[in-house]
Amino acid sequence: MKNIKLVIEYDGTRYNGWQKQINTQNTIQGKLTDILSSICEEEIQLIGSGRTDAGVHAYNQVANFQTNTKLPLEVLKKTINEKLEKDICVKKIEAVDPRFHSRYNAESKKYLYRIWTKEDINVFERKYSYHISEKLDIEKMKKAAECFIGTYDFKGFTSDKRTKKSTVKTIYSIELTVNNGLLEILYHGDSFLYNMVRIITGTLIEIGLGKMQISQISEIFESKDRTKAGFTVPPHGLFLKDVLY
Amino acid sequence: MKNIKLVIEYDGTRYNGWQKQINTQNTIQGKLTDILSSICEEEIQLIGSGRTDAGVHAYNQVANFQTNTKLPLEVLKKTINEKLEKDICVKKIEAVDPRFHSRYNAESKKYLYRIWTKEDINVFERKYSYHISEKLDIEKMKKAAECFIGTYDFKGFTSDKRTKKSTVKTIYSIELTVNNGLLEILYHGDSFLYNMVRIITGTLIEIGLGKMQISQISEIFESKDRTKAGFTVPPHGLFLKDVLY
Repeated sequence: MKNIKLVIEYDGTRYNGWQKQINTQNTIQGKLTDILSSICEEEIQLIGSGRTDAGVHAYNQVANFQTNTKLPLEVLKKTINEKLEKDICVKKIEAVDPRFHSRYNAESKKYLYRIWTKEDINVFERKYSYHISEKLDIEKMKKAAECFIGTYDFKGFTSDKRTKKSTVKTIYSIELTVNNGLLEILYHGDSFLYNMVRIITGTLIEIGLGKMQISQISEIFESKDRTKAGFTVPPHGLFLKDVLY
Repeated sequence: MKNIKLVIEYDGTRYNGWQKQINTQNTIQGKLTDILSSICEEEIQLIGSGRTDAGVHAYNQVANFQTNTKLPLEVLKKTINEKLEKDICVKKIEAVDPRFHSRYNAESKKYLYRIWTKEDINVFERKYSYHISEKLDIEKMKKAAECFIGTYDFKGFTSDKRTKKSTVKTIYSIELTVNNGLLEILYHGDSFLYNMVRIITGTLIEIGLGKMQISQISEIFESKDRTKAGFTVPPHGLFLKDVLY
């Protein structure tokens, strides 16, 4: 029995997110599980580092699975990629410690949110960035981003009302960079609640547009009231960038 | 009567090229002509700087048309973009000299060909670059590119067998740059024959792969025999970058 780790890139546009679910067709985990099971000739349980929502992309999603296959890893990788459609690609494959678990062992994650800020759309970015044509105050957004760095209860910044798990998370850094009209916001944190990156991004945008004030952030932390935070930005600007172990 | 110049960006993936033709649906010129005619409430003849083939993209295609419309230019631009699907965008609009003709007055053009050179595909580049996983000798390709700079009869580097027009063209520069696995080849010339950029690119690639020698370029120029040149690279890596006046 081998434990195999995959690093996967995908364009989430056509998919109903990462997670294979009953009644949900066309998920990335589902596609990969079917292909792996067919190649390895056994039923494969593919464990992802975490879900990504419908429409969200990934540069380096991590997943692992146990298998008895005797296929050399490079052959396995090549065969998987040949069977996958061109919007999913296994970039790395390696045999790892039998105890490695891509979700439980993940120490931190990086997410990137991409915003196209010029007045006109960019036709080549339309599926990979969110377009805001109104002027954003980037310096104010950078200042606002600092308020999220540290360990806090992020209950006010998640759409998940049902969770019984802790909503205390740590954000290590939020970096905003602008390059030729493209604003990229890179988040690094221990883990993220459901929609947390998208709600923080929406809050930063509303501050950048002057619709919210920086002082309101602490009020949302205190009230834990998601309705006070910014809107949930659309999924197509969001990329799972790295999972760190 | 006003003469209006447009600068247009498009993702050519879904289109049958620029040129509106009888029996050819879904062209970029066709879409724009229909929208302009509807907005201006008169039959519009849209003149492009030149055709792009099915699947070829453009950053800055130029076109012009005569109209009696009284709509302010910014309103016209906004209305066109609202009616266009998100894979075509009018980036600039301006009133120009009545004698301006986007094709006849074009002094030179720049085309960009993009090649993804890493072993694995890049899912986000799959529609906007040609993937070559075999190792390319970039230095040899740069040397080979120099052989095309100048004024020559490019009859050996076009697919158009019927043309009675001159096949003598001038290439001012060909620049190859590699950035994180992406090879970009930027061509600047007075004008280009049908498929000329794609055949020169195919020739450079075959030289980069060691399948052709640099010395064969002069033989193709001498024989004017297209079958001796490299293959025609696919359209999805090609971008009309600029039209200069």
